Amino acid sequence: MSKTYISPFKPKIFNKYHPKLFNIYTFNAGFKKNRSDLLVIEFNQPVPFAAAYTKSSTPSAPIIWAKKFSDNYCKLLIVNSGNANAHTGKKGLDSIQKYVKFAAKIFKCKLHHILVSSTGVIGEQLNSNLIISALSRLSLSSKKNILDAALSIMTTDTYPKISKKVIIHRNQKIKIYGIAKGSGMVAPKMGTMLSYIFIESNIKTNDLRNILKENIEPTFNSISVDGDTSTNDTVMIFSVGDKKVQKIDKKLKKKISEKIFQIMLNLSKQIVSDGEGISKLIEVNVINAKNDNQAKNIGFSVANSLLVKTAVSGEDANWGRVVMAIGKKQENIKQEKIIIKFGNLIVAKNGMVYKKINISSLNKYMKNKIIKININLNIGKYKKTVWSSDLTHKYIEINSDYRS
Amino acid sequence: MSKTYISPFKPKIFNKYHPKLFNIYTFNAGFKKNRSDLLVIEFNQPVPFAAAYTKSSTPSAPIIWAKKFSDNYCKLLIVNSGNANAHTGKKGLDSIQKYVKFAAKIFKCKLHHILVSSTGVIGEQLNSNLIISALSRLSLSSKKNILDAALSIMTTDTYPKISKKVIIHRNQKIKIYGIAKGSGMVAPKMGTMLSYIFIESNIKTNDLRNILKENIEPTFNSISVDGDTSTNDTVMIFSVGDKKVQKIDKKLKKKISEKIFQIMLNLSKQIVSDGEGISKLIEVNVINAKNDNQAKNIGFSVANSLLVKTAVSGEDANWGRVVMAIGKKQENIKQEKIIIKFGNLIVAKNGMVYKKINISSLNKYMKNKIIKININLNIGKYKKTVWSSDLTHKYIEINSDYRS
Repeated sequence: MSKTYISPFKPKIFNKYHPKLFNIYTFNAGFKKNRSDLLVIEFNQPVPFAAAYTKSSTPSAPIIWAKKFSDNYCKLLIVNSGNANAHTGKKGLDSIQKYVKFAAKIFKCKLHHILVSSTGVIGEQLNSNLIISALSRLSLSSKKNILDAALSIMTTDTYPKISKKVIIHRNQKIKIYGIAKGSGMVAPKMGTMLSYIFIESNIKTNDLRNILKENIEPTFNSISVDGDTSTNDTVMIFSVGDKKVQKIDKKLKKKISEKIFQIMLNLSKQIVSDGEGISKLIEVNVINAKNDNQAKNIGFSVANSLLVKTAVSGEDANWGRVVMAIGKKQENIKQEKIIIKFGNLIVAKNGMVYKKINISSLNKYMKNKIIKININLNIGKYKKTVWSSDLTHKYIEINSDYRS
Repeated sequence: MSKTYISPFKPKIFNKYHPKLFNIYTFNAGFKKNRSDLLVIEFNQPVPFAAAYTKSSTPSAPIIWAKKFSDNYCKLLIVNSGNANAHTGKKGLDSIQKYVKFAAKIFKCKLHHILVSSTGVIGEQLNSNLIISALSRLSLSSKKNILDAALSIMTTDTYPKISKKVIIHRNQKIKIYGIAKGSGMVAPKMGTMLSYIFIESNIKTNDLRNILKENIEPTFNSISVDGDTSTNDTVMIFSVGDKKVQKIDKKLKKKISEKIFQIMLNLSKQIVSDGEGISKLIEVNVINAKNDNQAKNIGFSVANSLLVKTAVSGEDANWGRVVMAIGKKQENIKQEKIIIKFGNLIVAKNGMVYKKINISSLNKYMKNKIIKININLNIGKYKKTVWSSDLTHKYIEINSDYRS
């Protein structure tokens, strides 16, 4: 495995935000060597939250557990990296039960007010003693910041993912913090996209659910590194404000939803920009499709095509592969109506290569770090944008060479 | 592009079969440098055939042409490699019209008794003069054999694909010949899986169609190199025998269908064994699924998963990725009932890692050239076998590095 690989999209500066309405603790519990691998977030009181989990039919124990036991309120969030607690059967659930019971004692809260997530190796049993023994060192642990939190949930992400927005409402500042970790089954045997967003306001559960639902489709559900869906994917939004803080009116709800959208989009793009072995970010825009599903199907087909991804990494404006990827979904389209552009440069029109195709401009365009593939189907009014990473030797190295 | 890469599955010996009931001509028409790139097959009389084409909604000109103009009988088959004549609009069809008209004159046959196929670059106009000028050299050309035919349709296949079977029926020998070229979008900008099968018997069109239909699903439709479907994929079966040769009874039809199945399976496996950059062949067997579709969905999900493919190339029995690939299809399955084996070695059972998992045997097993991933869903009685190639550096090299 390549230890020196760093995404070219890694930000230059990371801010250390210190939120006031919740406490952050991080530990090296021993899932990984000499690296923070356990995150605990303690809210001032049980707070409303909304969650979206993987649709996998082989979900991990934390997701089965959350669906069964968790309440509408959360006092404590526990996330470990290094072991996914996935496909671990009843033992995996027992393990959660053990460390959650212990945490409930330490933090003096109810069992069903604790949420858990895991990310890492699939199929290995999670040793609950590692978490228990870390938690028992709590008194020795100082409170950490948002950057520490983002660092502690990383597996082979090459950088921590943070996003922060501020809303000014009636002379009050409302801060929103988001963190995330890498998508794709990131390292050897590692997996999972995780994201947690904290709103310093007092939104009700139903509103949180609506906000999550309306924003997840064009953000976290519009990215792909390798087309593989983890057993552990989780997005959670918490409303951490005191109940008396703000009067939540329609206007504020709208403002918050807009900012949440920006944070989720920002984190999604950070995730795909740190996709395994990425050298270029691919943005596929499908417009004028017959319906939503068609736009999405074709967008993902192009974004996930190995041949499109390798062409982009080879800086080759290979629009023939884009045609192939459009066609293979067998959607009801009109081949002669499709217009394909790389950036603003038309490559195909009227069912064939564009008459005035400009190869030298195209070759220049392909040297960019962000490649936009724009597809106009010209048969309707629906659209979709999908982001993915290109496919490089580094991807193969990360995922197959680690034994050598 | 790597010029030295050769599939480890390349056969050691190639037979030169000389069929008697049709003539084979091959040419270097100029689509490729110094290599045979045009195949013409001339039958003794117009013969019945059945064809299956790509389901792509952006099919190539030859496929649009065949669907519009071709008759139930074929006297001449023309296949060129090096240019796919795909996404070429009306010009692409005009080009076919030109060279087919010329061929009809030379071979003294009807226009609608000519079938054409193309494979190669997508999106570039096909210069019909290259084919016309090759055909005009026909008198100088000698008749070729089946190996020549298989060689002439190759793009970056690393070996020609031939299969032959013989049926003995009432003291008569019936020979069946099949050729194919590589699947996946094989070379930079190249594409297409093509296969042609010739039966030295006099089967009727409807029977040919049934034989093709009943055998294509478990063979050509059960392989995948990179999950990408070409604009040009074509399988054709011809019955080249004289009408008086044999009485075709039910028993003979059954025998022929069985042999056709064997030929199609053999060619399919040859195609996937020559998948781009292959180091290992992956066979995924899904058994005891609830229905056909479920078995197929899960089989292809595992076979196409980049993470499973890279794990296999890294000789890593990473069954966690198999669990992920099973789950991501969101099929209605029971996680705790799944049994996963690599070869005969159980890795997961009862929803978790197998208690007696034998890591050293597993590591040894992963060194094989053919890796079987056996998945027992234990909820029904349907099954499916899918073949794919692993994902290696060579794949990336072939598909992205050729500019360097």
